[in-house]
Amino acid sequence: MKTLLIQQALLNGKRCDVLIKGNTIDMIADSIGIEADTVIDGKGKALIPGFANAHAHSAMTLFRGLGEDVPLMKWLHEYIWPYDLRIEEEMVYWGVKLACVEMIRSGTTCFNDLYWHLPQAVRATEEMGLRSVQAHSWIDFFEKERAEAHKVKLAKIYEASKQWSELTQFSVGPHSVYTVSPESWQWMAAFAGEHNLMLHTHLAETQTEYEDALKNFGVTPTRHLYDLKVLGPNVVAAHAIWLTPEDVQILGDHGVSVVHNPNSNLKLASGYKFLYNELKDAGVRVCLGTDGSASSNNLDMLEAMKNAALVQKAWRNDAASLPINELMQVASLHGYQAMGILAGKVEVGWLADLILIDLCQPAFVPNHNFYANLIYAANGSAVDTVICNGKILMQHKKIEGEEHIMEMAQKMAEKMIND
Amino acid sequence: MKTLLIQQALLNGKRCDVLIKGNTIDMIADSIGIEADTVIDGKGKALIPGFANAHAHSAMTLFRGLGEDVPLMKWLHEYIWPYDLRIEEEMVYWGVKLACVEMIRSGTTCFNDLYWHLPQAVRATEEMGLRSVQAHSWIDFFEKERAEAHKVKLAKIYEASKQWSELTQFSVGPHSVYTVSPESWQWMAAFAGEHNLMLHTHLAETQTEYEDALKNFGVTPTRHLYDLKVLGPNVVAAHAIWLTPEDVQILGDHGVSVVHNPNSNLKLASGYKFLYNELKDAGVRVCLGTDGSASSNNLDMLEAMKNAALVQKAWRNDAASLPINELMQVASLHGYQAMGILAGKVEVGWLADLILIDLCQPAFVPNHNFYANLIYAANGSAVDTVICNGKILMQHKKIEGEEHIMEMAQKMAEKMIND
Repeated sequence: MKTLLIQQALLNGKRCDVLIKGNTIDMIADSIGIEADTVIDGKGKALIPGFANAHAHSAMTLFRGLGEDVPLMKWLHEYIWPYDLRIEEEMVYWGVKLACVEMIRSGTTCFNDLYWHLPQAVRATEEMGLRSVQAHSWIDFFEKERAEAHKVKLAKIYEASKQWSELTQFSVGPHSVYTVSPESWQWMAAFAGEHNLMLHTHLAETQTEYEDALKNFGVTPTRHLYDLKVLGPNVVAAHAIWLTPEDVQILGDHGVSVVHNPNSNLKLASGYKFLYNELKDAGVRVCLGTDGSASSNNLDMLEAMKNAALVQKAWRNDAASLPINELMQVASLHGYQAMGILAGKVEVGWLADLILIDLCQPAFVPNHNFYANLIYAANGSAVDTVICNGKILMQHKKIEGEEHIMEMAQKMAEKMIND
Repeated sequence: MKTLLIQQALLNGKRCDVLIKGNTIDMIADSIGIEADTVIDGKGKALIPGFANAHAHSAMTLFRGLGEDVPLMKWLHEYIWPYDLRIEEEMVYWGVKLACVEMIRSGTTCFNDLYWHLPQAVRATEEMGLRSVQAHSWIDFFEKERAEAHKVKLAKIYEASKQWSELTQFSVGPHSVYTVSPESWQWMAAFAGEHNLMLHTHLAETQTEYEDALKNFGVTPTRHLYDLKVLGPNVVAAHAIWLTPEDVQILGDHGVSVVHNPNSNLKLASGYKFLYNELKDAGVRVCLGTDGSASSNNLDMLEAMKNAALVQKAWRNDAASLPINELMQVASLHGYQAMGILAGKVEVGWLADLILIDLCQPAFVPNHNFYANLIYAANGSAVDTVICNGKILMQHKKIEGEEHIMEMAQKMAEKMIND
């Protein structure tokens, strides 16, 4: 098995060596006197777990900058849905490649995606070396025919997924309560249960969704899913802004993971009073995501961490809420846990999804508090080195072939708009 | 006069050449066939005005990361004020140098500062080549003796300021309504009027300040300053979160410039409902600032722009508010105007305070909308080149001597904490 030795990086404020064997952290010590296949000089750098982006639509990098400063409905109808229909396989491939470049550059080692043309998304992600869970997005608008077509497609992708590498998991992706029929929800939950798959959805994102659910189902979106008996620990629900106290309890009782996407929620004016304290107290695992670049504009988890904390403090009028140590867990460990992956800590026996932070920049001076500097002062550009599944994906802030990927993504975006 | 030619940079989406003579933009054309003393290759870069950070305490970079996630009063009493007292001249010098490195790296070409030990702050800033307005911070806690000492000090610095270079202006800095007596306010306003100086203050930052003013003066903080007859177009008021409709009108009627500091206000839970639309409609010039690194943790104006927009859209429940074109003005032109400086536009005859943005990074792919990419997707690390007053301060993201400055600032911060 190949060995990789990181020498003299700062780990929790102390210099040490970390040995990686294969894809796993094998040893952590003051000094490790082993001749490794590859050695990384960690001096002037801090070692932390990579980030787990728990809700993304990575191919939507191609939509970055389309439809700015417009209200949600205009945004969806004039900018997102028309182009969504024009997205072809090749566009997904290059859009995801661009997203991977962006995620690697900003320290994300694993992401939870929801989109279509999965084979191309998986090919792109595995080529880039990132870990991911890829959900097949299911929208049927309550139409039987569409649902039947999805059933066939989903089963087919599930079969194909058996050939995917250890980096990639397949998951089931009911888009939301307003785009997926109750029957389809139950079919997907059964399928996920049978094959031990995650279920990735949008939940209670906007006030409109919340009010429409009350009108159409007579209950809140969350309660609707509870009534359908589809909630469980395999469910990852993105957004969850519009919740009643009963909804919070339901999510906690069923071990649902909730993904907070602060930038997207703010920018689309979907709502900002994310119930972090209440969800945590109810036992919900809170994770962090960027959402797609169409609404968050970038995939920088450090920016998402800062904004999650700032807005939580502001709307609660409590500067102590969502503190630094919890933010680190939310942005890494919890995301990995939601995806059932043993990573998100620098610990022997855990998967080597790790990043090195370049400390030689103003954000880290002075060094009163490393994590405060990382989250509140720095941004994704502080990431120097990225290791995923034991392999080096970036060193000295350079990724092999990134210029070509940016060129191709630019071409695909032009094709999407003009053709 | 020295000439500097920027060749083939993108300006408003079009490639062109820009010639700078001395400190001024001399010519803008498709192609300029002049042999300049210095030539910058602008290919793959966009040219925009540098940012004007309209409210900062630059020496407080030394406080970065002290007292995190604690409520405002604990923060002030346990972390800020005790160390504020320990700040010596040498610390201010290196703290400001570090701030200048950080500002240059993130594209700020001019800043409006409020602190003490001004001679050292000015020396540091002029060495780094940045433009600034430096206010002598006046806190007298309503005590006559303190006020008298400030009068002497202020007059002395004003005399010294006549020797400062064209890069630096002196201004008067009454800290706030709760730390400065009415008599001192009026003395300063008269001094500023007599010598044609700006007046830089904190105004209506927190609910406590607002309620205390009602209790102590019987009126709001803004109305208090109105009653003292100290408001006018030379006043730059930072924060201005807690305003009545009458306050908004007062600020508009008197031509006051207001500086929004979103990150600091969010993080300290001071308030987030900044009345951008109302202030703009009342004719107030709204500017943008980072505040000091003690509360905002960095001096990145692009991050401040994004967060100003995101939070404004969120709390108003209107994704269209504070749009991109207004953000650019708020972050540059308005700040310069507040300081009475002809910069903040790339236009012939205007001062050459300009920056070049590196477009070869994921945030700028695809190029559907350059300003959306700049503000919503990129951050300060996108800045490649900084020109201030016609001089190059940074090229290829490197500033001469920055490592030494970081080392010295680190030493000063340790001295501040430990001695």
